[in-house]
Amino acid sequence: MNTHRYCVIMCGGVGSRFWPFSRNNCPKQFLDFFGTGKSLLQLTVERISPIVRPENIILVTNKQYAGIIREQLPQIKESNILLEPARRNTAPCVCWAALHIHALDPEASIVTLPSDHLVLKENEFHKAIDEGLSFVESGDRLLTLGIRPTSPNTGYGYIQQGVTVEGVEGIRRVKSFTEKPNLEMAKVFLQCGEFFWNSGIFLWTAENILKAFKLYAPEILQLLTASEGVYGTPKETEFIDRQFPNAPNISIDYAIMEKADNVYVKIVDLGWSDLGTWKALYEVSPRNADGNVTQNCKVLASDCKGSMFAVSGDKIVVAAGLKDYIVADNGNALLIYPIADEQKIRHIVNEVKTRFGENYI
Amino acid sequence: MNTHRYCVIMCGGVGSRFWPFSRNNCPKQFLDFFGTGKSLLQLTVERISPIVRPENIILVTNKQYAGIIREQLPQIKESNILLEPARRNTAPCVCWAALHIHALDPEASIVTLPSDHLVLKENEFHKAIDEGLSFVESGDRLLTLGIRPTSPNTGYGYIQQGVTVEGVEGIRRVKSFTEKPNLEMAKVFLQCGEFFWNSGIFLWTAENILKAFKLYAPEILQLLTASEGVYGTPKETEFIDRQFPNAPNISIDYAIMEKADNVYVKIVDLGWSDLGTWKALYEVSPRNADGNVTQNCKVLASDCKGSMFAVSGDKIVVAAGLKDYIVADNGNALLIYPIADEQKIRHIVNEVKTRFGENYI
Repeated sequence: MNTHRYCVIMCGGVGSRFWPFSRNNCPKQFLDFFGTGKSLLQLTVERISPIVRPENIILVTNKQYAGIIREQLPQIKESNILLEPARRNTAPCVCWAALHIHALDPEASIVTLPSDHLVLKENEFHKAIDEGLSFVESGDRLLTLGIRPTSPNTGYGYIQQGVTVEGVEGIRRVKSFTEKPNLEMAKVFLQCGEFFWNSGIFLWTAENILKAFKLYAPEILQLLTASEGVYGTPKETEFIDRQFPNAPNISIDYAIMEKADNVYVKIVDLGWSDLGTWKALYEVSPRNADGNVTQNCKVLASDCKGSMFAVSGDKIVVAAGLKDYIVADNGNALLIYPIADEQKIRHIVNEVKTRFGENYI
Repeated sequence: MNTHRYCVIMCGGVGSRFWPFSRNNCPKQFLDFFGTGKSLLQLTVERISPIVRPENIILVTNKQYAGIIREQLPQIKESNILLEPARRNTAPCVCWAALHIHALDPEASIVTLPSDHLVLKENEFHKAIDEGLSFVESGDRLLTLGIRPTSPNTGYGYIQQGVTVEGVEGIRRVKSFTEKPNLEMAKVFLQCGEFFWNSGIFLWTAENILKAFKLYAPEILQLLTASEGVYGTPKETEFIDRQFPNAPNISIDYAIMEKADNVYVKIVDLGWSDLGTWKALYEVSPRNADGNVTQNCKVLASDCKGSMFAVSGDKIVVAAGLKDYIVADNGNALLIYPIADEQKIRHIVNEVKTRFGENYI
């Protein structure tokens, strides 16, 4: 295994869209979504392990989740868990991880992974990461993995491919990024064939991403390099606790990818889903003859179609007449909602919080 | 208070129609249906207490529920709780209670009450019981309370009134009994004006109901009087344990009321419901502007109408788009079912038992 290759797994997200399953104190990445006995985060670590050695796997998360991460990933050593003192979206997180890794190994290349996505084709994934890292190791390039869209999904970011790269198959220049288009635009994107879903999987060398920060987000880099020689030393935590909260709240896409002129996309077929919504989860889950999905529970359904039952504990659900519904029961909350309206769930969670208190979210 | 007046409360029923709220080990009568902090049984005892003294209140139940009854009714002394060793419907139960009471007081009159009904008009109830007992104390008469029907309910028994009784207002001879008619017949009954719902509240003297058993159900009386002088003595329990299981499984309506020629009905307006089904409970519960009923729980409902939410514990329900549904969540079971199909719930409970085990019912 190439000892210069590192993986950064971002696992600090809150994610209210799977409420009541995901909770403030246990967001989606820590849940066993498929009843395999492993959380999405554990599956992510397992997935990358054949190509990145454990000591090169870095987790970045919010301080709040330190306990649950140590519990779920006892094999990751303490110094590889970077605990953000505040939520500041992905750009500050990527910058810190790059500085940390660069201090350990100036020749490092890095694949950055979300912790809560589904990847069904592991071999394709390994091949894509391996080829992608080779590509970024051989020049000043920032690479993202693009997924061929199968529907006009308005929840994803879209990447428009540009010209081919000479001598490299399957990788193209990026022409444009579009965050969450409206449905009309998403349909155009789908038909056009030039647009791909942004998987949120990024590849670069530590040196080149820091170079990009210097060019496109210098305020973040300056903030996190205000003292010299702190990374990889006992001073790092204290320094980050002081500096990090002052970073702007901005995504890596906005801060760097949309601005840089050396951005590439590798088109991949990974059996990928960001599992961003109940609908996305429904779509990748095995269904019975009536199109119902049963998640870790016993269900007696009559005249139910296209519905998803996700219930925690050894519980039975008896339901009739539900068409295209989510039934999600967990702890002190029960959700019975049309799948088609699932984008409202985020707002509902806010309303629940306001009306009934933090205890329910 | 008249010391010869007794009350028998029948509280041995199983009642699977309120599953998953009512459970095998905790049927409906032991549940706090209205969030008042008191079970239906406790409310029944409280309701009769102003007119029957505590030492004259006799509970008849199945052995299985001895514990929960002692817990809910610590004021009722042990010897007033008759524990049936087997389920044999209401006729054997009524006969035993009459023999027991007759041994204590040959002049006793008895009002027999179901333990799991709703009565909103307490004063009317007290008046009806008082007048009814006076009526049965003054002659060899069996009396039942009849409720003026408000809908063609097919779940009730119907009593057809006969001729008036000279000198007594509001009480008539009974012409016929009809158990659970079909809808067509129930509609005719409703229009006709001669038919009343059988409340299951019966009044008679101990002597006269025993006389009726001798005439119309002699096998039950013989069985329960096979030894002499056991009632009200330490031998009673052992005798009942031996004899009672041999009694036929038959209701008091079939065994006595439909056969006897001295049966009367007193028409009453008690704000009564037998709470026999979710729908019955829905109909007597306060509703919000959308016609939804919320039972002991927090609900955030959008576009829900005519639905009933009954959830145990300090839980929140978020629901959308439900029309005329029951949502009942209790322990290890969740029911989401159209109210209109509620008569299927009994069968479902059987299916749950068969497929998933006793633990769920």
